[in-house]
Amino acid sequence: MNVKKQSVSESGNPNAKRRILGIDPGSRITGYGIIESDGIRSSHVASGCIRIAEEAFPQRLGEIFRQLTEIVSAYQPTEMAIEQVFMAKNASSALKLGQARGAAICACVVAGLPVFEYAPRAIKQAVVGSGSADKDQVQHMIKHILQIKDRLTSDQSDALAVAISHAHANSTLLLLARSSKGGWGR
Amino acid sequence: MNVKKQSVSESGNPNAKRRILGIDPGSRITGYGIIESDGIRSSHVASGCIRIAEEAFPQRLGEIFRQLTEIVSAYQPTEMAIEQVFMAKNASSALKLGQARGAAICACVVAGLPVFEYAPRAIKQAVVGSGSADKDQVQHMIKHILQIKDRLTSDQSDALAVAISHAHANSTLLLLARSSKGGWGR
Repeated sequence: MNVKKQSVSESGNPNAKRRILGIDPGSRITGYGIIESDGIRSSHVASGCIRIAEEAFPQRLGEIFRQLTEIVSAYQPTEMAIEQVFMAKNASSALKLGQARGAAICACVVAGLPVFEYAPRAIKQAVVGSGSADKDQVQHMIKHILQIKDRLTSDQSDALAVAISHAHANSTLLLLARSSKGGWGR
Repeated sequence: MNVKKQSVSESGNPNAKRRILGIDPGSRITGYGIIESDGIRSSHVASGCIRIAEEAFPQRLGEIFRQLTEIVSAYQPTEMAIEQVFMAKNASSALKLGQARGAAICACVVAGLPVFEYAPRAIKQAVVGSGSADKDQVQHMIKHILQIKDRLTSDQSDALAVAISHAHANSTLLLLARSSKGGWGR
């Protein structure tokens, strides 16, 4: 059997804490959320929104890049997770979203973070347990999982949701790795 | 009459040489072209393509950002020009193009360059004299204006075309500024 070691198992301890930055990009508001997770238990480190108001579009992209660079530098996450986009409403909104997404991903890649993408259904599945959950259910579970009492904006909770999905996905990889004694086929 | 001074006229000498970086972004190939121009005569400084082959998408965006940052640092352009996108073929290609565009614009904004956008028709009008000119006509005129003997790829010539449009547009602003004695109504 051709078995390859996988980098996740190399970190050894599946209970090691990792800091995950989740991002929900948009041309006017970019949500971010940072959690710490051992793959089973997750805790809230910080979250918020980068709001860019009246500036010209190129300046807005630069601002997303700069502010995310500062956030990465301040909180030192070890990896970044972002929602996959399959279908935007139309070509014009897809272009705007794409530019904001490009700026956000760039800031993380340039800072040396590995970037992971998750489909919207996979995020809902990971957080609520159902791929067809609505926004309110996702937000409710985010607050429960991370024990957050304060109000969250939808951008904030979407960013935290993708971070939690990534924590859970990694946890599944780790469990798989352990059950196959540190490696599995590809 | 409410007349505002415009920053272009403040630079004083309309014959002052400026270095313009034109960019034609794409998720696999990003063309770039640098020209020097006094607004009337333009000369070719450098041009080429950033080709990003088999990497994962986030790495490609990081590569566009890094290589453009190096190009800006090496050639020290004073401004950047890029084609406006009105309609992409579909939402999926608009998203990919948007991300590449976001990475390219970010690199220039972070490096402190002002960014200017030009509509495709305006670029053809500026280079060939007709908004409905085809790619071959644009490339022919680019080679003539910049006295380039070598073969140009279409990404290279599109990047040089938007740089030339910006040089000409500024020249028109300068002529307007001079004809109204250093200012005009807005």
